[in-house]
Amino acid sequence: MKAYTIQHLHQLPTLTDHELPSVNDDLALIQLTASALNHRDIWITKGLYPNIRLGAVMGADGCGILDGQEYIINPGLEWGSNELYQSPDFRVLGVPDDGTFADFIAVDRKYLYPKPTHLSSVQAAALPLAGVTAFRAIIKRAQVRKGEKVLISGIGGGVALFAMQYAIALECEVYVTSGSDLKIAEAISLGAKAGYIYHDPDWPKKLLSDAGGVDVIIDGACGIGFNQLVKVCLPGARISFYGGTAGKIEGLNPQLVFWRQISILGTTMGSDADFNDMIDFVSMHKIVPIVDIIMPFDAIPDGFKKLASGNQFGKIVFQH
Amino acid sequence: MKAYTIQHLHQLPTLTDHELPSVNDDLALIQLTASALNHRDIWITKGLYPNIRLGAVMGADGCGILDGQEYIINPGLEWGSNELYQSPDFRVLGVPDDGTFADFIAVDRKYLYPKPTHLSSVQAAALPLAGVTAFRAIIKRAQVRKGEKVLISGIGGGVALFAMQYAIALECEVYVTSGSDLKIAEAISLGAKAGYIYHDPDWPKKLLSDAGGVDVIIDGACGIGFNQLVKVCLPGARISFYGGTAGKIEGLNPQLVFWRQISILGTTMGSDADFNDMIDFVSMHKIVPIVDIIMPFDAIPDGFKKLASGNQFGKIVFQH
Repeated sequence: MKAYTIQHLHQLPTLTDHELPSVNDDLALIQLTASALNHRDIWITKGLYPNIRLGAVMGADGCGILDGQEYIINPGLEWGSNELYQSPDFRVLGVPDDGTFADFIAVDRKYLYPKPTHLSSVQAAALPLAGVTAFRAIIKRAQVRKGEKVLISGIGGGVALFAMQYAIALECEVYVTSGSDLKIAEAISLGAKAGYIYHDPDWPKKLLSDAGGVDVIIDGACGIGFNQLVKVCLPGARISFYGGTAGKIEGLNPQLVFWRQISILGTTMGSDADFNDMIDFVSMHKIVPIVDIIMPFDAIPDGFKKLASGNQFGKIVFQH
Repeated sequence: MKAYTIQHLHQLPTLTDHELPSVNDDLALIQLTASALNHRDIWITKGLYPNIRLGAVMGADGCGILDGQEYIINPGLEWGSNELYQSPDFRVLGVPDDGTFADFIAVDRKYLYPKPTHLSSVQAAALPLAGVTAFRAIIKRAQVRKGEKVLISGIGGGVALFAMQYAIALECEVYVTSGSDLKIAEAISLGAKAGYIYHDPDWPKKLLSDAGGVDVIIDGACGIGFNQLVKVCLPGARISFYGGTAGKIEGLNPQLVFWRQISILGTTMGSDADFNDMIDFVSMHKIVPIVDIIMPFDAIPDGFKKLASGNQFGKIVFQH
């Protein structure tokens, strides 16, 4: 079968003629119909992830067919029994385990979820990793409630967009930040109330003037900008963060946090229950993942280049 | 009546001949039998608190008699209806409202709780503000569970000691930090498993070697040492902090937090429900507050000096 594998670090994945995976009673052979890209895939090619197995098939997100039924694959393997955190055996599909950038994949049947009927294959393939990460961040960790005021930082990335869509589905008042006016305009067209350029040091003042503050913040950056997030918190606010692309948190004033009973919640990926509940939520609210571009399977290396450019708004999906 | 009032900033409270408070159907006149000191009282004399009313009677903690029954006073006034955070009207008894360093106090009956029968007046007076702050921090916010591993930083202070006692009551494995070998020895004699001098940069390694890490941390310091707290967290750990005496949090590595699904929870004081549940918990587990010293009412200014020295282990209580 055809597969994009990691052959060398610091290179794009290589189209390889790969052996068809072997299966057994638990492992089902899925014919992939679509797959999608995550920043994780880029970090793997840069060697920035532990347990990289050269020769492995890349790709965490995928959707495929088994016995005439189409399934979404939960890419979070071996989360374990504790909802609070992943077990030491936890790993994400696609390096070291063979992933979704291939014609076929062997997956334990327990990770297969029937594709929601309102989604196409391409839309469904955009959902898994970013969808469950956003779900755990905003629904399980921040426990956002209907109608609350929500700020999503760095809109345009997969997790940020899903978090925005979930919040809008719950009739929240959603605000966003971005480095790009275009992305802010797109977020507003999708239902966000307003957006702010995070390079503008006065954005917290503007948000406070517009919204009075927010109850929930979903962030993937941290860094020095984290203090601006704290400034716009209402009492009892929850900040969930799933990444730290802007580096360490510096100069965080404890008084601003404890006096207002703020919760700062680290979160990553999600459990089997999170994935299951996410699929139910997406189905119930008919949420359609935002797809930036659909590319053919053979263009997977071009997809990596596009994601690295940082210009995308939504997921980069590959039609197999 | 006799009362210790704040007459000038940067001075100890002054013994004053104060008018007996007026009462009505809601306000009951309590004859105080004991009161206790908090760091808050010192900060007020230094002008480090908003809404300081010169001439007001100081003191948040107290126990007293009404119609032959002894009561503990909940010092948290007007928390409001939201359990997540205090209302803008929230304030603590003792400046600007007249407090407990007096012969009598007028208190709304809803803030009166019958004194647990296993406590003396002096012990009961030691409980309110530190007791409820610790209860919200470890029970409500960190949601400590029976048998978990718990670290209490800066043992010896009122909140830290109550948090330790609550954790021990829940059969937790409790570890402490302190600047003093003597305080660590006292904590161990009360049931802590081990303690570490926080000036020793290797204390996290020692704790990791002894305990493997902790599930819950209760901290009142923050500052640069906060990173050492994060280092000893087990996956899914909760850090509740109720103060920031060591200043801003610097250099916090987001990866260490989100990958291990750690929650960092700001907390202060407690709601009426927190206070009620704290009294029930203390009664059920027969928890006896740690009292450093019992001083006569007239020695209240000496109590301020003693607390400022930082050498106390437990509460400084005044017998009226």
